[in-house]
Amino acid sequence: MPIITLTTDFGARDGYVGAMKGVILTIAPQTTLVDIAHGIPPQDVAAGAVALAQAAPLYPPGTIHVAVIDPGVGGNRADILVEAGGQLFVGPDNGVLSLVARGPRQIFRIESSEFRRDPVSPTFHGRDVFAPAAARLAAGARPVDAGPILDSMVEIIRAPARRAAGIIEGEVIHVDGFGNLITSLPGDVLRGAGDSDIGVEVDGGEGLFAPLVGRTFSDVEPGALVAYVGSGGQVEIARRDGSAARRMDAGRGTVVRVRTPAS
Amino acid sequence: MPIITLTTDFGARDGYVGAMKGVILTIAPQTTLVDIAHGIPPQDVAAGAVALAQAAPLYPPGTIHVAVIDPGVGGNRADILVEAGGQLFVGPDNGVLSLVARGPRQIFRIESSEFRRDPVSPTFHGRDVFAPAAARLAAGARPVDAGPILDSMVEIIRAPARRAAGIIEGEVIHVDGFGNLITSLPGDVLRGAGDSDIGVEVDGGEGLFAPLVGRTFSDVEPGALVAYVGSGGQVEIARRDGSAARRMDAGRGTVVRVRTPAS
Amino acid sequence: MPIITLTTDFGARDGYVGAMKGVILTIAPQTTLVDIAHGIPPQDVAAGAVALAQAAPLYPPGTIHVAVIDPGVGGNRADILVEAGGQLFVGPDNGVLSLVARGPRQIFRIESSEFRRDPVSPTFHGRDVFAPAAARLAAGARPVDAGPILDSMVEIIRAPARRAAGIIEGEVIHVDGFGNLITSLPGDVLRGAGDSDIGVEVDGGEGLFAPLVGRTFSDVEPGALVAYVGSGGQVEIARRDGSAARRMDAGRGTVVRVRTPAS
Repeated sequence: MPIITLTTDFGARDGYVGAMKGVILTIAPQTTLVDIAHGIPPQDVAAGAVALAQAAPLYPPGTIHVAVIDPGVGGNRADILVEAGGQLFVGPDNGVLSLVARGPRQIFRIESSEFRRDPVSPTFHGRDVFAPAAARLAAGARPVDAGPILDSMVEIIRAPARRAAGIIEGEVIHVDGFGNLITSLPGDVLRGAGDSDIGVEVDGGEGLFAPLVGRTFSDVEPGALVAYVGSGGQVEIARRDGSAARRMDAGRGTVVRVRTPAS
Repeated sequence: MPIITLTTDFGARDGYVGAMKGVILTIAPQTTLVDIAHGIPPQDVAAGAVALAQAAPLYPPGTIHVAVIDPGVGGNRADILVEAGGQLFVGPDNGVLSLVARGPRQIFRIESSEFRRDPVSPTFHGRDVFAPAAARLAAGARPVDAGPILDSMVEIIRAPARRAAGIIEGEVIHVDGFGNLITSLPGDVLRGAGDSDIGVEVDGGEGLFAPLVGRTFSDVEPGALVAYVGSGGQVEIARRDGSAARRMDAGRGTVVRVRTPAS
Repeated sequence: MPIITLTTDFGARDGYVGAMKGVILTIAPQTTLVDIAHGIPPQDVAAGAVALAQAAPLYPPGTIHVAVIDPGVGGNRADILVEAGGQLFVGPDNGVLSLVARGPRQIFRIESSEFRRDPVSPTFHGRDVFAPAAARLAAGARPVDAGPILDSMVEIIRAPARRAAGIIEGEVIHVDGFGNLITSLPGDVLRGAGDSDIGVEVDGGEGLFAPLVGRTFSDVEPGALVAYVGSGGQVEIARRDGSAARRMDAGRGTVVRVRTPAS
């Protein structure tokens, strides 16, 4: 049975998620439907991109992931389908698929009438484009049947910048439900460092602190700040038994610097 | 595999939804369980009715939909089962099923002991009546086995009123998670109209504005108000990149008028 | 198809629940995944224990329940697997499994590398221990393969105390989404009592009131307080058409006394 996962900002108060599921089960009744998350903050493309990147890599090859955080619905942005890492990703071309599909990939614009309902509502491509496209794929259609190949897609994060010798600068791209800061810095900027060799700084925060080189939160005092390589492979900053976001007054876009020995 | 969908106000903090699913999977293990929404505002029958009406029509024939928004649980209201549009609907007779089952329909009172657990708790018919009833149907029972036929059921909305030549009046029946106003006015009051021919007015709001006759939000300025035929077939009012409810200070029951050329 | 249920405090904003599901479907693709609740208040072990106890007993024999409310993740607490009542429970040894597994049971420490991902992240045992352990069980592994047997596990509630002749004292262990108080008192302290024979008292509240011996909320006035045996088998206190927690200013730990005729 093909798996289709759903990630949206539709919340739990309305029938929008349920409508998408109905469309999928009508076209591809054998689908295993999986909810990843429907409480992505409204129209928060970056938060959706992070959630999808946390979850999707754990799924079996051939899984079809649908992400609908779509403030530009009905406008000029394309509806796209991306093949990457042996899985398929369906959603708007606004960056929501760009974190999870960072490696080699092929991008298709969804244009075929077979991949859409008729008519397509201007406000609900989740139901009218993304759900039927995913279901067609689950029922055996090939990505190339969706429409023309695109050369690029919208990217959600900038690459980390090297500001000076030993200083790498990125930013907070998401604050999770526990108040942990997820940054744009790849985890390898922390790897191999000992306590005294490296420091992490959050703009407007309380200066340098050491990354967590031990393995558990229990290694630090309650309330202490720690930086570590998060479950999604990027540098994250957390506070033991508390919210790093509140403590540091940090949110999306807050600058984060890693200082390593200038070499 | 039969499909059973669930729509409740039980939220995501308690085991109530999980209890219903356990009852269903014990009686009908082959069921495909689908969550429509569990964050319906507590005891908000109209909100549940809207969510169900947004989603249910998209499901395959034979789908069984369970809706439990049930402030009167344990009281005099009936437990009912409705067959309409080739699908089955199970829930309390308080209006929650009345939006989705507006066409020809047959209504049954759930009384058979085969359709209920024993004993039935006075506070949790979701687990003790609606879940087992749905599961029995999934396992092959016929609606007529549930109990006696009823002539009518509680309706959730009043029909739109014609106040004067060219003025049709309805009301907001639901505000969705994006702040869009869903009204009791059927979409055809807007159809076929050009910009200058028709106007929409929200009580206490800012007077007449034009319905969206173009196809996308991108056709209007950020912040502008638009009226359009929503995904559920009724007139909806939204604000581009914002909340119409907050802008208009509107909520359930707010009067909405459509003014068309008196003819 | 084996059933695996999930109960967590991961919320609906992040990819953590989705990651666990991916791990499970990769190891055991035939699993029927069931969401019990993911909105358990963050790190609220008692709330998770109550939700699991409300739902799990309704599932078929052989169901595997995973509960991840895990403030001590990465610390000294064990990862455990409990066999009780014909079902299997997987989670941290912090009490979250202790309400549901109150009868005869066998407890195993999850240590086998076959039941874990490699490496195990210090912050996410849901993905790296509990999900793979549950999936291995679903795929046919035996509980005894997980690791050594433990003699005991952490318990979440204290037994009710007998303060004086006819006075049994317990406490509120959880406030549900409707403001109902779920107590540590077993339901049988109310059973068989008539209105005048027994009273319930909430500390700091408004003195004695009668338990609900009739069957429905409709038997009392709107706003009245009632005590009854809840759907989970324990004494619960509710307010008709309102929140008992707000009315009584009660929360977790508030003392609740049942006074019966001294005999």
